[in-house]
Amino acid sequence: MSEPSDRPSRPASKPSERPSWLEIAADDPFGVHNLPYGAFDPGDGSRRLGARIGDRVLDLAALERAGLVEARGTLQAATLNPYMALGRPYWKAVRDRLTELLTDQIFRYRVERLLVPLADVTPGLPFEVGDYVDFYSSQEHATNLGRLFRPGSPPLLPNWKHLPIGYHGRAGTVVVSGTDIVRPNGQRKPPDAPAPTFGPSQRLDIEAEVGFVVGAPSSLGTPLTTKDFYEYEFGVVLHNDRSARELQAWEYQPLGPFLGKSFATSVSAWVVPLDALAQARVPAPEQSPPVLPYLADERTGYDIRIEVVWNGTVVSRPPFSGLYWTPAQQLAHLTANGASVRPGDLYASGTVSGAKRAEVGSFIELTWGGAEPVTLADGRTRTFLEDGDTVTLTATAPGLDGTVVGFGEVVGRIQPPRR
Amino acid sequence: MSEPSDRPSRPASKPSERPSWLEIAADDPFGVHNLPYGAFDPGDGSRRLGARIGDRVLDLAALERAGLVEARGTLQAATLNPYMALGRPYWKAVRDRLTELLTDQIFRYRVERLLVPLADVTPGLPFEVGDYVDFYSSQEHATNLGRLFRPGSPPLLPNWKHLPIGYHGRAGTVVVSGTDIVRPNGQRKPPDAPAPTFGPSQRLDIEAEVGFVVGAPSSLGTPLTTKDFYEYEFGVVLHNDRSARELQAWEYQPLGPFLGKSFATSVSAWVVPLDALAQARVPAPEQSPPVLPYLADERTGYDIRIEVVWNGTVVSRPPFSGLYWTPAQQLAHLTANGASVRPGDLYASGTVSGAKRAEVGSFIELTWGGAEPVTLADGRTRTFLEDGDTVTLTATAPGLDGTVVGFGEVVGRIQPPRR
Repeated sequence: MSEPSDRPSRPASKPSERPSWLEIAADDPFGVHNLPYGAFDPGDGSRRLGARIGDRVLDLAALERAGLVEARGTLQAATLNPYMALGRPYWKAVRDRLTELLTDQIFRYRVERLLVPLADVTPGLPFEVGDYVDFYSSQEHATNLGRLFRPGSPPLLPNWKHLPIGYHGRAGTVVVSGTDIVRPNGQRKPPDAPAPTFGPSQRLDIEAEVGFVVGAPSSLGTPLTTKDFYEYEFGVVLHNDRSARELQAWEYQPLGPFLGKSFATSVSAWVVPLDALAQARVPAPEQSPPVLPYLADERTGYDIRIEVVWNGTVVSRPPFSGLYWTPAQQLAHLTANGASVRPGDLYASGTVSGAKRAEVGSFIELTWGGAEPVTLADGRTRTFLEDGDTVTLTATAPGLDGTVVGFGEVVGRIQPPRR
Repeated sequence: MSEPSDRPSRPASKPSERPSWLEIAADDPFGVHNLPYGAFDPGDGSRRLGARIGDRVLDLAALERAGLVEARGTLQAATLNPYMALGRPYWKAVRDRLTELLTDQIFRYRVERLLVPLADVTPGLPFEVGDYVDFYSSQEHATNLGRLFRPGSPPLLPNWKHLPIGYHGRAGTVVVSGTDIVRPNGQRKPPDAPAPTFGPSQRLDIEAEVGFVVGAPSSLGTPLTTKDFYEYEFGVVLHNDRSARELQAWEYQPLGPFLGKSFATSVSAWVVPLDALAQARVPAPEQSPPVLPYLADERTGYDIRIEVVWNGTVVSRPPFSGLYWTPAQQLAHLTANGASVRPGDLYASGTVSGAKRAEVGSFIELTWGGAEPVTLADGRTRTFLEDGDTVTLTATAPGLDGTVVGFGEVVGRIQPPRR
């Protein structure tokens, strides 16, 4: 990344050779090793791009206008989409440059004034969502849901180990963390009821997931391969695919989930760059039977550890690393028929559930369909979400040199229906 | 709609009192009674909005710049989305004004120069698709597909008559008429095969549908009612939901269609305003059992008659008027859980099939799963689409004073896979 010509030319500095001028604890999950991207309202109703560093936000729009970083003007946009569309060479150059600016003392005077306290801004949705796809990659979750939704049948359907099952969700109702969630109304019919009824969902649930944000566009008619993952994938968000279980159970045959899922999907406000997760790579589970060649991959998973907090009580710790299908396989599968991807496309892992009850990513699993309530720290019991409840998802992953990479939280409070 | 002040003030003219200065046959399906909207490339790679009139296109961007129509600058955009977002009062005022400009002699000199021959331009996708939902509203189609996909089970599932079944499709692969269709690759497994295989779809199909384009946005958390339909709905397109049947059959349990549908969906280049279809309203079929109150509506269907032309041979004439679920019910249903709509959201009827074999909207029905080939005018037989095949959908509906409202065609040629 070159410097504008009106400033003295300097040899490129290497961050690791210099002490950081930032006062950030070594164990801060939002240190220079992370630098997630977001879009924030500085307080005037506008929306601008920023990078989170500790408890501050670096104003990327101002940084680019000052000539300190160059991304073809895309950092002036209100969403990450134009920047993401530039592709990996730009993502790498900008990330390297941000690291340099935040660690080299020579830049301190000019950069420090562009840091805004996180507490003074309101994070918005960091990108405009193109298409949203939700996968179903946890064998434990698919088995649990199969048992609960289709009792008496084999829980895992014959196709599950041959392809990453997924479906398109509603992109227009993806909301940023902090957005209140209005309890959905809908139709439901218990198997023994004579007719369906309509009303507020009584089985309102969460699904703790990891979302993958596509950066670079592909061409219609040309599939991507599992090897294209690093070229096209920009970053990662935490993801809560909110679900109304009795609506879903009544509507989902034969065309899949619709209103049981489309009322709100919450994502974290900060997109963790894929490059910040290089140290979090772990081997993904081996697959048996072997997959078809177009799905063969290097079996790279990510050691992302999620926490699910219900009204202040940690109720589960879903481990992302155990998922059967990798995000590289998901990208190859969703484009195998020639479907194209766009900057801002979002595809999520599906509910992350481990083998133990304390590792499941949904309350329908945690309370086994509502039959086994949980008791929270305040002594109250819960099966599904009640009005006023708040669920917070957080996550961490191993970072560079023993650091920890933090994800922005995903939080939302349940409100009663409006009609 | 007021005139700019630098031109002489005139009393508002009423179109019906004046002869049209346009030389258009009374039976032209694209007369002044229709005026569908589109976006066209004038030949320089740019994209501008236009209204089709006969075999010409009125350049709406130039018209607004000339001060002849006023829509807050939205007619300067490359897509209809900003204009649609203005809402019905603007849609009505602009439509009235276009009618006035095209019928009152006084405007002839200034307007005629803004008409471009249709043959000189390339129509593009008229709007940026927000969310795309595909419904399943033909009882005949749902019954036929149930028989073909689930032989031995009741073809119509228990929920079908209680709610308009639908699912989200891929918005990013909606393409305009004329776009070549690359045959999709994919996984399939016949029931008696030991394992799935991957390759070009051998059961490539069409689905003849009518698409509804949402114009005005709604608020997240606030459902719309069936009465809100006229307020939010901007117009109508013809729609071909291309389908790869053996991919769909293998993947669709339990989360619905995914790659069997997501490779390409073709829409017509011209959006027929809902206001042009006032004379096409017909009573929709009565529903039994009665629907829940949130789905109760005035039972308004539209007498839209589709023709399916396969390599030049008319193979079917699906009648839209017989659909069980109306577009007003679909809009109320898809927002019943509080999901919001955006300008550019597209929801389609699902395959339009009548009771007779000559009225079905898909080839899997026309050839009964491929078991009963059809013979085209060139003497060749077909079951599903072959490379080089072209299918054209056209449609008409009754218009004002005995006229006919035409829809733009939906056409696409099948190309072999690229990989």
